[in-house]
Amino acid sequence: MQHSYKTGDAGHVDFVGAGPGDPELLTLKALAAFEQADLVLHDRLISDEVLALAAQQAKLVDVGKAGFGPSWKQSDIDALLVDYALKGHRIVRLKSGDPTVFGRLDEEIEAVQAAGISWQIVPGITAASAAVAGIGQSLTRRGRNSSVRFLTGHDMKGFADHDWNALARAGSVAAIYMGKKSARFIQGRLIMHGADRATPVTLVENASRPNQRILATTLDQLPTDLATAEMDGPALTFYGLAPRDAAQAVTEFNKEHA
Amino acid sequence: MQHSYKTGDAGHVDFVGAGPGDPELLTLKALAAFEQADLVLHDRLISDEVLALAAQQAKLVDVGKAGFGPSWKQSDIDALLVDYALKGHRIVRLKSGDPTVFGRLDEEIEAVQAAGISWQIVPGITAASAAVAGIGQSLTRRGRNSSVRFLTGHDMKGFADHDWNALARAGSVAAIYMGKKSARFIQGRLIMHGADRATPVTLVENASRPNQRILATTLDQLPTDLATAEMDGPALTFYGLAPRDAAQAVTEFNKEHA
Repeated sequence: MQHSYKTGDAGHVDFVGAGPGDPELLTLKALAAFEQADLVLHDRLISDEVLALAAQQAKLVDVGKAGFGPSWKQSDIDALLVDYALKGHRIVRLKSGDPTVFGRLDEEIEAVQAAGISWQIVPGITAASAAVAGIGQSLTRRGRNSSVRFLTGHDMKGFADHDWNALARAGSVAAIYMGKKSARFIQGRLIMHGADRATPVTLVENASRPNQRILATTLDQLPTDLATAEMDGPALTFYGLAPRDAAQAVTEFNKEHA
Repeated sequence: MQHSYKTGDAGHVDFVGAGPGDPELLTLKALAAFEQADLVLHDRLISDEVLALAAQQAKLVDVGKAGFGPSWKQSDIDALLVDYALKGHRIVRLKSGDPTVFGRLDEEIEAVQAAGISWQIVPGITAASAAVAGIGQSLTRRGRNSSVRFLTGHDMKGFADHDWNALARAGSVAAIYMGKKSARFIQGRLIMHGADRATPVTLVENASRPNQRILATTLDQLPTDLATAEMDGPALTFYGLAPRDAAQAVTEFNKEHA
């Protein structure tokens, strides 16, 4: 639904999912939003190819770094959105992946809505979907897992706590966002709750991009292999999934690091 | 990655996510796959608008109903995919939403791969993303939930069992696929495990389509309100989420049913 709470000269904000990086994974609706916008406020981690499409008719504003300091505060972004919209701009607020999945969307919607500005959410391909496609697997599978969890490795209090007991059970599958720094913490919690050390764990760095890399490991070897891999791009960690062709993925990875 | 295991005259299968129904929620990559295909094997529940785009250059084969009987068996679909591909066809296997989320994808990949046919997965917007955008909410929110679960109401054994104890805790959020028939079962399990009867539950029928309907209720009232609503389209059930503007959603729903 289109959320419009007053009429007048106020602008409009589309909260748009940029997908995981491959511009081919943008939706037609995201492209239409780019065409109608005159300003695009974007995060870090949006690929250059997607930004180039967004910039064809609109001015880009990077709210992911620099600006008011090393990184923008959420309240500054909220204020900027409202300020531009009240001046009558039509804005795309571009977030990587799907804005509803670990996108810190609510604070911004609340600010925009409180100012009486109309808005809508344009969903995007979340990193988990792109990454699992990249390893040739499904997030769910009949007879294996009738649920999948999307977790974050970090929350406001630091490393995020989760229902480790349930996750530790055989057959659990989780897509872990922002899981690199918390890898050792997650490993420790899961093993403490009885998870099998041989449980497959797969990291997909830069999912869907030309520099995508796949690291296939186990819960036991996760911190060691991750340290060796030196992944500095955004990565999605799958707990409970191996690449469909494990030998291939490992070979590709080892070849690159020989 | 493109999975290619032999060269020759064999065809190719793209497992493509059709998204939730709005053709604007197709990705550019899905459109490109349509353009290259000469055959599109599709499920039920794909919208007419999406099928019209898929059919511009390719022949549609409905494997969701009729054909070999009231509904196709999985093994028949597997065999048909392999048969067509070995004849050299370039096939789109079109699945609603994202093929990796409750898409019964693995059986088909295994059949195709065993026959030496190349394939890839093209991710799509899953129903949960579109439905949550339709109620103006996020699947995750800082300070509320640092994880979200995607569940199915049904599995091979009937009503699917889940970690009800964890789900029953305050702040849990789940997107339940195929949850209409199992609504009373899910309600009973959650209440038995201590869930608050006032927990918000929202159903989004036909997410992203012109006939989208929103039913905002509570765990306590779920079976009663669902029976009154007579939803016969595909619906996504959110446990732990209310529409951002609850009064509006309820009003819209009541108006329609006055």
